[in-house]
Order: sequence, then structure tokens, then C-alpha cells
Amino acid sequence: MKSYREELWFNVPERRAFINITQQVEEYVLKSGIKEGLCLVNAMHITASVYVNDDERGLLQDYEAWLEGLAPHEPTSRYRHNLTGEDNADAHLKRQVMGREVVVAITNGKLDFGLWEQIFYGEFDGRRRKRVLVKIIGE
Amino acid sequence: MKSYREELWFNVPERRAFINITQQVEEYVLKSGIKEGLCLVNAMHITASVYVNDDERGLLQDYEAWLEGLAPHEPTSRYRHNLTGEDNADAHLKRQVMGREVVVAITNGKLDFGLWEQIFYGEFDGRRRKRVLVKIIGE
Amino acid sequence: MKSYREELWFNVPERRAFINITQQVEEYVLKSGIKEGLCLVNAMHITASVYVNDDERGLLQDYEAWLEGLAPHEPTSRYRHNLTGEDNADAHLKRQVMGREVVVAITNGKLDFGLWEQIFYGEFDGRRRKRVLVKIIGE
Repeated sequence: MKSYREELWFNVPERRAFINITQQVEEYVLKSGIKEGLCLVNAMHITASVYVNDDERGLLQDYEAWLEGLAPHEPTSRYRHNLTGEDNADAHLKRQVMGREVVVAITNGKLDFGLWEQIFYGEFDGRRRKRVLVKIIGE
Repeated sequence: MKSYREELWFNVPERRAFINITQQVEEYVLKSGIKEGLCLVNAMHITASVYVNDDERGLLQDYEAWLEGLAPHEPTSRYRHNLTGEDNADAHLKRQVMGREVVVAITNGKLDFGLWEQIFYGEFDGRRRKRVLVKIIGE
Repeated sequence: MKSYREELWFNVPERRAFINITQQVEEYVLKSGIKEGLCLVNAMHITASVYVNDDERGLLQDYEAWLEGLAPHEPTSRYRHNLTGEDNADAHLKRQVMGREVVVAITNGKLDFGLWEQIFYGEFDGRRRKRVLVKIIGE
């Protein structure tokens, strides 16, 4: 069994953003030399997500509005977590809806994806350096 | 390390449905000959889910009503994604709540499940051919 | 390839609770002797979650209140699942928001975590014995 590890770093200038990271993950799969296995991609922070969905601008706006409806940022006083001095409680909630990680099959040395599957980093509390882990195991 | 791959195909006549796929996945685990490992089961489409929960008719109706409350199909004009000519933005949202994939342990050649765990395909934009990937790795 | 399996048991006296299980999972990783691989941690029950987020008391209260808003326990008659004689339909919904499982990378014999990542067991229908599966594969 082989294993391979990489980190992807981000510094999103806004509080929230969705970033397509499929191409970087594909490159890591290639560099790993692994032909058959599993690829784990996870946020290493608890106010961010990694998920698979469509790279369509309108949909990303829909996600933003929908998540804001499910877990509003303001008033920040509505969350007990923000009594610690943070203002990011909503980000911890939004991240649970979108998920921490994806596990993608590797087949014939490539991400084994359906036609429209794309891997996204979902940032819900940006404006600082944060990272994603890519761990690949297989043969 | 061994690996094994299968696809499960669906053509759900309705827009939405929940389909128990546990038995098919069990058969693939048996065919794989893998005794200890991990089994990834994921939707290859971004308007469908694979998840683990109970096979109880009332609960499936509860999921349907609950998801429709969290991300209503209509009015379709409420979603920017639907400006592309699609009417399935709600399906992209519902799928995030229910999840893309499950990873199940394989122990002694079987899915290592608790008593009530069942694998479901959740369709949120049916009426066309769609598929699920089963990828098993182990020994 | 090596594999390792453990179960973690709980008997939460309340209906709902969040329990940090990171230390136990770390011990299992150590006992497994696996240096590079993947660690699956999943609820074996369908009214409970395993998820990764912050161990901050205020945030756990925020999760409790937020999930109760998204899928209220009462009136129990609002859910068809409860016609079976159960009163836990809301627990099946809450578990979908928080997720069934996490997959964590193992690197150099340890959980490959960001600074604040902690593994939690989320109980939504307690007052009985329930368990979590830890399955580790790698080398």
C-alpha cells in the first residue's frame, strides 16, 4: 500500500467564498502514482467545508443565501459561542450542513467522478490563512 | 491491497424517491472477495445522495416533507441556478443535507453495520438515468 | 495492509448530548500500530452522529438549539415515523444534518488534524446503550 499527503492553503479576503479545487486534487492524484485507492480531502479548520457539487455561479449564490437563511451570521449575539469573543458561530453551523470532507475513489490513476462532480472548498470565516488536507492511499 | 468497482444504475420515474440499496452493495462486497477494508458508496450525480438510515416508510415521508421545508422546489424562480434553464436548484441543496457518500467498514467479508443501518439512494431530480459508484479497497 | 477494529459504547442519561471522543480514537490509532492510512469513525445507530468540530461549551449549546429549530422534537405527532410508537423521528433528521461518520487521515501514526479539530459523538435519542465503530486501515 502506498500513501501520499499534501496540503492546500487559502487566504480568502472575504468572510465567505466557494473555491473549486478539483484541478489541484487531480494533480496530487497524478503525483501520488496511485492507480486504485481512495482520496480523502478535508478542511483542517472547523469553520470551513470540503464538498462536491456543481461549478455554476448561480448555484454558488443559492448556497450562500440558503446557508445564511439556515444559520444567519447576525445578530452575532444570538449564539453563545460568540460570548467567547468570536463572531463566527454561524460558520461552525454552516460547515456542518456542507460537510467537513469528501472521499473520492481513484480508478486508473484518476478521480472517479461523474460528469458534473467538482470538489469545492467552502470558506465561512475567511480573512486568514487556512488549509485543506489531501490524503491518498492505495496502490 | 485489492480493489473492486461497480456501478449501480437508476431511472426513477418521479422527481424524488428513496431507494434501499443495501442488498446490492452487500453482493458487491461478497464478489470483491475483500475481508477487511473500506467500502465507499457515492452518488455520481450532484442532485442525489447516498446516506445511511432507517428503512421505515413513515420516516421516508418525514425526510421528504422536511427537506421540502428546508429547500422548497417552488417557486423555482427563487433560485439563481434555475436562470440557467434548470428547475433543479432545490435538488442541489437537498443533496447537501443528506450527503453525497457513505464509507462503511468491511469486517469478516461483510458490511460492518449496526442493527438498523441501511444504505439509501436519495433521488431529488429523477426521471433520467443516474448512477452510484461502489468502490471497495482492502484485503 | 493492516486493519484494526474497536467499538466505543455509550449510555447517555439524557435524550441529547455531545461527547468528545478524540482521546479514545487516538488511543486506538496508537494500538493499531498503523502509521499511514485512514481511520473511519461512525455511529452504528441511526439516531446519532459522529462529526468533527470545536470542543467549546457555548458552541455545543448553539448546536443543540439550532438542531431543535431545524427538526423540533415536539409535537411528536408532526412526524409519521412516530406513528410506529417511537418518539424519535426528530433524532433521525438531526443526525442527517450532523452526519453519520468521519474519515480522518493517519500520518506518522497519529490523527492528522488541524489545531481545533475534535471528534464528537452526537446523541439525539439517548437513555440506552449505543455504540460507535472505529475502523483503521493502512500500514
